[in-house]
Amino acid sequence: MLSVNRTAMPAVRELIDRRDELGVAVAEQENGATCIDCGVHVAGSYRAGALFVEICLAGLATTAITMGRVGGVPVPFLHLTVSRPALACLGSQKAGWVLKAGGYSAMASGPARALSLKPKNTYKMLGYRDTSEIGILALEADTLPGEEVTGFIAEKCGIEPENLYVLVAPTRSLVGSVQISGRVVTATLHKLEEKGYDVLRISHAAGRSPIAPVKRTGIEAMGTTNDCNIYYGSVSLVAEGYDPVFATLPSQTSPDYGRPFARVLKDAGYDFLKVDSLLAFSPAEVTVNDSESGEVHHFGSLNADVLLESFGFL
Amino acid sequence: MLSVNRTAMPAVRELIDRRDELGVAVAEQENGATCIDCGVHVAGSYRAGALFVEICLAGLATTAITMGRVGGVPVPFLHLTVSRPALACLGSQKAGWVLKAGGYSAMASGPARALSLKPKNTYKMLGYRDTSEIGILALEADTLPGEEVTGFIAEKCGIEPENLYVLVAPTRSLVGSVQISGRVVTATLHKLEEKGYDVLRISHAAGRSPIAPVKRTGIEAMGTTNDCNIYYGSVSLVAEGYDPVFATLPSQTSPDYGRPFARVLKDAGYDFLKVDSLLAFSPAEVTVNDSESGEVHHFGSLNADVLLESFGFL
Amino acid sequence: MLSVNRTAMPAVRELIDRRDELGVAVAEQENGATCIDCGVHVAGSYRAGALFVEICLAGLATTAITMGRVGGVPVPFLHLTVSRPALACLGSQKAGWVLKAGGYSAMASGPARALSLKPKNTYKMLGYRDTSEIGILALEADTLPGEEVTGFIAEKCGIEPENLYVLVAPTRSLVGSVQISGRVVTATLHKLEEKGYDVLRISHAAGRSPIAPVKRTGIEAMGTTNDCNIYYGSVSLVAEGYDPVFATLPSQTSPDYGRPFARVLKDAGYDFLKVDSLLAFSPAEVTVNDSESGEVHHFGSLNADVLLESFGFL
Repeated sequence: MLSVNRTAMPAVRELIDRRDELGVAVAEQENGATCIDCGVHVAGSYRAGALFVEICLAGLATTAITMGRVGGVPVPFLHLTVSRPALACLGSQKAGWVLKAGGYSAMASGPARALSLKPKNTYKMLGYRDTSEIGILALEADTLPGEEVTGFIAEKCGIEPENLYVLVAPTRSLVGSVQISGRVVTATLHKLEEKGYDVLRISHAAGRSPIAPVKRTGIEAMGTTNDCNIYYGSVSLVAEGYDPVFATLPSQTSPDYGRPFARVLKDAGYDFLKVDSLLAFSPAEVTVNDSESGEVHHFGSLNADVLLESFGFL
Repeated sequence: MLSVNRTAMPAVRELIDRRDELGVAVAEQENGATCIDCGVHVAGSYRAGALFVEICLAGLATTAITMGRVGGVPVPFLHLTVSRPALACLGSQKAGWVLKAGGYSAMASGPARALSLKPKNTYKMLGYRDTSEIGILALEADTLPGEEVTGFIAEKCGIEPENLYVLVAPTRSLVGSVQISGRVVTATLHKLEEKGYDVLRISHAAGRSPIAPVKRTGIEAMGTTNDCNIYYGSVSLVAEGYDPVFATLPSQTSPDYGRPFARVLKDAGYDFLKVDSLLAFSPAEVTVNDSESGEVHHFGSLNADVLLESFGFL
Repeated sequence: MLSVNRTAMPAVRELIDRRDELGVAVAEQENGATCIDCGVHVAGSYRAGALFVEICLAGLATTAITMGRVGGVPVPFLHLTVSRPALACLGSQKAGWVLKAGGYSAMASGPARALSLKPKNTYKMLGYRDTSEIGILALEADTLPGEEVTGFIAEKCGIEPENLYVLVAPTRSLVGSVQISGRVVTATLHKLEEKGYDVLRISHAAGRSPIAPVKRTGIEAMGTTNDCNIYYGSVSLVAEGYDPVFATLPSQTSPDYGRPFARVLKDAGYDFLKVDSLLAFSPAEVTVNDSESGEVHHFGSLNADVLLESFGFL
């Protein structure tokens, strides 16, 4: 069985070796942990964002960035194809670890989750755990973690701090924008998992999503980046057998569909209990190819109007 | 002169080294031959499909997979650019070897054809033969070849079995779908060759084609995968001089145009003599840039309706 | 600080190592200089063109070629994302060195300009100079440079001739077409520089442009390749702060907008003083994301009619 931390390592290596070209910064902490800043004190780059996505997906995805269009406006798009989707998406990229250590907190994703088994039920479902001596974790956070945080992560992963690589990107950064567009397939599989579907029946996945502009605040960025997937993210799955749950995947099945995500949150008084908890995991559209019957189903549609409103085009 | 088997080897190496990530299986047979299963007993992946295409094209092509659209539906597309098109397409990727050994039969393509010289007239036209000690052959087949088959192939190629690499993908598999979309340029050059055009005058080629869904049976898969090229495949050629034959390339010039390929076969009672033998080698549209005059010609058009009917969208 | 000549070297190495596959020729001159012919006596290839672009951009860009559409016609497109845009575009790719040595003249671009400091004010603005012992220069020219030319270049760069790599492509060649499409972002930054904008405030850039057909003469090729950017080039920038100059970037703000570039020149009697000197540096459309306010602005539009007229579709 492959090690998701080992298969992610070549892309980590490219980030480190080409740090200056890619606009990232690499620091070795006193405890030996390697911290790769992709957007806190540095600019990052589109290529760093693509590598961030490939690392989160355990090296099991191939990405490409093209210039596409939303309505009449040119917008960069991230495209990705994913091998072994359940493992790559849920066993690695899913932001399944709410990291809290000292005063530091961040959503943590990436292959090191398969060492700490966060959350346990996902790895039980997958029948997978990694036993690698190295660990790679990606944090969506506005500040870099200190040694007490990387030490805590290493301990939870059962590895030495000097074998830990932590990547950090704020939501409000270019790499942050790219990495959330790169979640369009994983969001869909997460929704399937939440609805009790056996995600191991998904044999292949591909997707694309526009890359959001960089916004002024983290909360605005959270809205706009998620809108890329909710209103303009396309996912194509090959599944072993049809299931009625597929029809419920697109965002337009949500009662909160139709407004930019930031406005949905605001209208609910930022009370997350009043918001459809799966909206942020709903792509605009999904195509499912049932490889047993050969049938193909398409659900949902793109919505350029809401996305351009979210982007705030002037 | 370059060796098409040597230039294909880096992509073969990636398939072997990353077998677990890419969903392929590698077995060394008793006679030393390496058999790479890309879809018989394994799932394969989009990336394995792209490598399969690059290997068939002797490492002379660059590929990219993006999510595009057919009608209102998201569909993954394979894009490719081809260097030295006559050599890459006809000297390597063309399925010019009808392999029969014992009870095993398969359409064989890829660089090892330039060792066995199948078919001889193509290599005479190209003025090329490879003298590599290694050989790489790609089989479109539903089962893996036994040692008697790989031994037969090695003998025909004049190489030792331990230097033979055989890739296998069923038509009815994801890699099968990708690899047939990857034939859109080669199909066009094959039609030109059949019509007596001097294909060495094609200096550059590029193309794209949608990637077909996985169907239930091999015959259905044969229909749908070919329809990708026939009804939605685009090819762009740079040629030294204009020739009226270019106008005959698009599928819409065929008397059998307008129905899914599987239906064309069925309507003809599966009597291949009653079907236009060049329909499967006809892209939807072709652009030809005559580099001597600077003129550009466009023939044919896309047909989303027939392709979506072929895909069987529900 | 990174060395733009060092970061461009891996792509130069790929061109050299895969010369036969990529359709380029490599010659070592008596003085030790390496001359890479990408289209004078050889065919080149799309992949060689993409590498030419990445080399000119000092290895700081990622490229992809897809088959897109202009009007109803399939056309290959070059997509690129650029890291550290001011350095990559103005410090390297800008054709800022009018090379004249003996009877030889060519527009020179690429990282070796950061050794010879051509033009000096650009490097003063960037606060950058390279101190690499190797130098890489790209020439847009119809003939290969002799030793007296490469010796002259090496001297101006302060390096030994044996550490000099010179790439050559005529405007009228496939690599010539690709490399000019690959200038769509740099053209935009050059126009910003000319208008006195502090280009260091551009933190990220992406773009795409169609790849022009190969024309019969150099003057025709100059027209058609530039029209790709002028009438169908899209650029997306992330900038620190808004500036009214952004609205002036698109080609439609030019008094010479609306006719193929070759006709503009002809109508002006080939008197360059009568032509808007910034037209060739004006993309069809620009999107600017002000990362300080989070706002997004879109200026300009695509014009398929003029581009297809320029291509000369029959």
